[in-house]
Formats: sequence, structure tokens, C-alpha cells
Amino acid sequence: MQSIICFISDFGLDDTWVGVCHAVIHRSCPQAHVVDLAHRIPPYDVRKGAAVAASGVHQIPDAIHLVVVDPGVGAGRRDICLLTAGGSWLVGPDNGVLVPAAMRAGGIERAVSIDPAKIDLRSPLATFHARDILAPAAAALACGVEASSLGAPVAVDTLAAAPFEMCRMGDGEVVGEVLEADRFGSLRFNVPAEQIDRLGLKAPVLEFALGHNQVRAPLVATYAEVRPGEPVAVVDSSGWLTLALNRASAAERFGVEDGTAVRIRPVMDVRA
Amino acid sequence: MQSIICFISDFGLDDTWVGVCHAVIHRSCPQAHVVDLAHRIPPYDVRKGAAVAASGVHQIPDAIHLVVVDPGVGAGRRDICLLTAGGSWLVGPDNGVLVPAAMRAGGIERAVSIDPAKIDLRSPLATFHARDILAPAAAALACGVEASSLGAPVAVDTLAAAPFEMCRMGDGEVVGEVLEADRFGSLRFNVPAEQIDRLGLKAPVLEFALGHNQVRAPLVATYAEVRPGEPVAVVDSSGWLTLALNRASAAERFGVEDGTAVRIRPVMDVRA
Amino acid sequence: MQSIICFISDFGLDDTWVGVCHAVIHRSCPQAHVVDLAHRIPPYDVRKGAAVAASGVHQIPDAIHLVVVDPGVGAGRRDICLLTAGGSWLVGPDNGVLVPAAMRAGGIERAVSIDPAKIDLRSPLATFHARDILAPAAAALACGVEASSLGAPVAVDTLAAAPFEMCRMGDGEVVGEVLEADRFGSLRFNVPAEQIDRLGLKAPVLEFALGHNQVRAPLVATYAEVRPGEPVAVVDSSGWLTLALNRASAAERFGVEDGTAVRIRPVMDVRA
Repeated sequence: MQSIICFISDFGLDDTWVGVCHAVIHRSCPQAHVVDLAHRIPPYDVRKGAAVAASGVHQIPDAIHLVVVDPGVGAGRRDICLLTAGGSWLVGPDNGVLVPAAMRAGGIERAVSIDPAKIDLRSPLATFHARDILAPAAAALACGVEASSLGAPVAVDTLAAAPFEMCRMGDGEVVGEVLEADRFGSLRFNVPAEQIDRLGLKAPVLEFALGHNQVRAPLVATYAEVRPGEPVAVVDSSGWLTLALNRASAAERFGVEDGTAVRIRPVMDVRA
Repeated sequence: MQSIICFISDFGLDDTWVGVCHAVIHRSCPQAHVVDLAHRIPPYDVRKGAAVAASGVHQIPDAIHLVVVDPGVGAGRRDICLLTAGGSWLVGPDNGVLVPAAMRAGGIERAVSIDPAKIDLRSPLATFHARDILAPAAAALACGVEASSLGAPVAVDTLAAAPFEMCRMGDGEVVGEVLEADRFGSLRFNVPAEQIDRLGLKAPVLEFALGHNQVRAPLVATYAEVRPGEPVAVVDSSGWLTLALNRASAAERFGVEDGTAVRIRPVMDVRA
Repeated sequence: MQSIICFISDFGLDDTWVGVCHAVIHRSCPQAHVVDLAHRIPPYDVRKGAAVAASGVHQIPDAIHLVVVDPGVGAGRRDICLLTAGGSWLVGPDNGVLVPAAMRAGGIERAVSIDPAKIDLRSPLATFHARDILAPAAAALACGVEASSLGAPVAVDTLAAAPFEMCRMGDGEVVGEVLEADRFGSLRFNVPAEQIDRLGLKAPVLEFALGHNQVRAPLVATYAEVRPGEPVAVVDSSGWLTLALNRASAAERFGVEDGTAVRIRPVMDVRA
């Protein structure tokens, strides 16, 4: 039994939505411990929600991840639970927001569609599945309810596609994109830590072709291994390959946005 | 005994105020479960605090609601506990911020003035009743202390008035106002869900006279029942009648603010 | 045993960092109760983090305070635990961020350097000591682990210096600085409540020389003792001497910033 529910949403912190879901979970399964991972995903931004969920599941693998970024609420898309090969549960809408997290947690072992009629809370509201269907489903899993009793099995190949792909091998280089810039301006790419070796990126120095910039940075353990203001490549805590500046903002310096394409190749030296 | 304390304030999230109240409650009643509903009410905005509190009590009725928006702290106004007919407790300053919530929870059954001398925490600070009087009172109620032992009864007709009224019937139409726009730009009116039928608004289509706009929208279960960008009337999760655009911001499109007057009437068709 | 862990950081609320630390603590010591005091410290702002930590320890003395503002993460600076004379534990990087809090909690009784090898969580990541070293150390203390088993003793005189000093006596006046403006625009000075008497500031009226302003304000219990818009000196809930305007922003009116110098002297009357 997994007692931690990691909660991600685009609800923001100005309304009562997040708190109401906490209350619903507490009422339904008092021993569940809800951890707020991120609620300021921009409204409707499935891509960003998926990136954050993949970071979360990488860091807290054996937990239940409740992810609500849901522009199509009420429009007929399914609510689903995914069990990953790594043993995590992912609960959210079937709009692709859970898929990258599932990939990072070993792939999808099993998928179940949540049947509102099996959630005995009350009649669900069409506009607020988070409160009336998804949070109760996460609470049920936290309290040991069998997923099979929440609804019917779903064929994995019918699930909605991920809003972004993981990086791929190109011609002697890795082709990917900027997933997001963090609070300190560090750029996370769609290159999972666990694949750096396989992709041929385990090198002393990496070169990033990033928008109009060509940046070389040593691949080291931490920002402080270069001088302030200099570029550095690290695997950051979210488990993505990251390009940062020591104590400065790479996002600002290089002027890139979420989704900007990047090509990465190993080089021998920081000098071009 | 009610173990959930829903906490609303204008404290924001940049200072230690919210956390300190959490610590006080945990020390005083460890089994209480504090749920943060909203802390970014604009400073001193009693009207907004009252609107959010009314949404909260509607969604989590059998709980203790601690509501602190208190421009007059230390100025002699009372701290009070209200027991509603619906069984909720409301704890906060006697400045009207609790009254709409009490109305939505069935009306005020009983009111008690909190006597700081009966809160055995420490000598209260004149500037921080939330920490030294209100949070301890909520914790006491959560741990089963009788309200009568917190202070003297208060006559309901001596309580400060609400900062806004609920909507009223006009000449064949409902006259109300915009309570607030939510994060997605949907406009909530002071029309409680539970009164829509009685007010004659249970109709296929509603017409809203809103500032300079005349908007017709179908009254349906969810946003996705209209095309993206089109107006839709729903009862949203907070329990207020709401005018939204599917996947777009009604607040932006119609250029209205909190408090803007609205007149609403049932019509037969979305075409004028 | 102290079960409350007060958590302060510059992580913001947009990333998963805060939540991941919550999960780590919950896994490691389920009976610990984590209270979020402030996470929106500006990135790398050790001074602001130290000011907030000193407010926190003043209000919640017998707790564990986890303070993470750490521009030099991975650069060789130590992670430390400080036991204060007042019985608080402070856990964070050895960059001065803990020192003002320790001073306000009676001074440093004992200091221990945290040895990552003694934290049996997993191999720590160089970029995220909060998750992999500091949060587990706080959790260990919360669960009754002896500090001596977390690492080697540290000589107090080898600790990094505080990012700001407490005020000092000048020529018939107290010389200090603005620690910070709170959400309501009130200005907190580096004058601890417990020293006001000793510094000769227990007077009916105080005069503040503050940038280009000369402000006289009565020293009273609460804002509401002056008319709206008028200046007032109080000891606010954080335990710092504070200059405020009743229901208005002193920070805006006087145009000062964090760190602005102030000279304060007792006077007899609000008229100059």
C-alpha cells in the first residue's frame, strides 16, 4: 500500500480547488499523505503538466501521482489509472498528460478507466472531475482498493498520445527539445538521466545547438564546478539533462522557450 | 467532532503567517487536519474573502472554516465563532467576512464571541489575532471543546453585515453582481446553485446583461458542451452560477470586474 | 522529541522541489509534521532567508527549522545542524543563513556537520542537498536520532558569518536597517522585540531617520491605534520592531528597500 499521493494541477493557488481535493482525500482515506508537487502549471498546459509529472514520478517512484491538467473536462475523454512497471500509480485524464511519467517509470503495466459510478462519494460534477472522480480514485488506491474495482481495463494502445516525445538519436547527435526552464533559469531537456550513457552523451563536454546559440559546457556534478556566469551541463534533481549557468539564468542568456529544439553532441573540449 | 479545518486568509504565501498558524493548530490539536483553501485574497479584501469562504463552506460543509481577512485587527471588533444550521463552524473576525458562508450553510444557529482569556496559549498579540486567538479557537473546536467555553453568546442581530448580498428577484429577471473571476476567467455571480430553480433560472438558455454586454449562453453541465470560445452558463464547482467561455477567458472578453452588476433572465434560444 | 519541521527555502512553488522534500521527510519520519513557512525567498537571497528564519524561530521556538537558500550548493560548503540555547534545531547550509535565527533563539549551543554517508537515504545528488542531505537530517532529528550520529562536531567560530547584523547602539540612537517589507508594506527593522527595552526604545513615540524621511510614530500595540494612513510603530508578530501605516503601505510611502539604513531614537511627542 502506498500512502503518498503526489498532486499536480493547473489549478493555481488563488482558488479553493487544491484545498477541496485535499479535504476529499482526507475524508476518504485519512492515512493518505498528500504532497503538493506543483499547482501553478499554466492553465490547460498539458505539455508542461506532463513534463512536471515525469520529474515527480522519477523522484518519488513508489507513490500515487494525481495529475490534473484537463482542458477537455466533461468532453467525453476518459479518467484513467495507470500502473507502471516501476510500481507507481498515475491517476488523471486520458489526454496524454500521464504518458511521459509512465515512460520514465518503466512503461505502462496496466490501465483502468475510472467509472464514476464506482466512486461512492456523491454525484460527480461535470466541471470538476478532480474533486469528484480523480481525487477519490487516488484516495481509494491509497487505501488499498483494487484498481480493477474502480472500472474497466483499458487497452494501452487506445490511450491518448503524449504531448511530447523523449529525445531521439540523430546523425551523431541527440535531437531533443527544451522541456522547461526552472526557477533559476536552468534549461531541462527531454533527455532522461537514465539514458545519457546509451545516447553516447557521457562525455567530459557537451555541445548544445540551441536556437541561434552554440554552447559548450562541461558535464559535471554541480553548478559550482564552473565559474559564476559560465555554462554547465548537469543531471538536475528532476532527472533531466540540464544546461545551466552557475548563479545566473541560462533561459535569459540564450533567449529560448519551452519547446525550442536542441541538438546535443559530445565534444572533447570546452573550446570550439 | 470535525477534524478538518479549512483555512482562508489574505496573508499571501511570502511571509511566515500561514505556516505559523499551522504550527499553532498542530501543537494545540494534533489530530486536526488543516486544509489551505486560499491565502492570496488581496490584502484587506473582506468582500473577496467572504466570497471564497462561501464557496468553501458549500463544498466542505461539515468542517471548521477559519477565515482571516481583518483590516480592523486590534480595533475592538470581536472575534467570533458561528455554528451554522448545516453543522459547519465558522471562525473569524466579526466584520461580515463569515456571513455569506453562514447563509450558504443554512443560516446562523448560534454565535459566540471568543474571549482571549479562555484561550490558554499565551498572551495574545494585538496585531496577530489569527495566531493567538482565532487559530487556537479553531483548534479547540476541532478537539471537541464546547464553543460555550470559548466565550459569551452573541446576539445574531448584532453581528457586522455581509460585504455583499445574495442576488434578488427584479422585474422578471435576477439582479446580482460578479463575485469574482476564477483562474480560467470564468465569472461567478452571487447566485447560489441551490436557488437557481426557485429564481426561475432553470432554463435551456440564460441571457446576461453584464456591463455593456448582452450575452446569451446555454445552461449546461460543462464547458465542453459548446465550441471553443463560445459562452456557456454552468453551475461551477464552487456552487455559484457561472458564465464562462469554453477554453477561453470570459473576464477578458467582457472586460468586467468583481462587483460588476448583472441582470439575468431565462430565454428560449441562444439567438437574440 | 520535536515533531514540527518548519521549512523555508528559495525554491518557489512552481517546481517539484518543495513537495519532493515533503515526501522524503514523510518517508523517513512519518510522525514529523512539516510546516511550510516561506518558499518564495528570491533565488539565492541568503539575507532574506536569514531574516525569515529568524522570524520563524522566534515564533515557533521548540521546533526543527530547515532553511535552504544555498547559492553555493555543491561548492564544498558544509551542511550543518545547530542546536540553540533555546532548544531549537536549525538545519541548513553553512553560509550564514542560520545564524540570525540562532542568535534570536539564545545563541548556538552546539554545531554538527552533516556527513552524507550517515544519511542512509541514497547517494546524494550534488545539485540537491535539500532533498538528499538536509531534509533527511531534519527528519532524523524529528525522529529522535542523536545529532552526534549525523556527523562531526563543528567549532562555532568556524561557521560562516551572518548576512546581516542585529542593530547596535549609536550616539543616543539605535542604528539598524530595514530587514524586509511585509505583504502589507510594513517595514521590519533588525531590532528584536526582546531588546527594545535594553536599547532605550521603550518610549511613547519613536523617530525614524529612514532614507530621506524623518518619521515620528507612536509605539503602540496595534495599527488601529492611529487613523488610517498614519504611521505607527509596533512589535509585529515576527518579533521585529516595525514601522507601518494603518491600512496603507509604509514601503511605498517612504520608498525604501531591504537593507536601507535606519536610525531610531525615542522622542516625547509625535510633533517634531
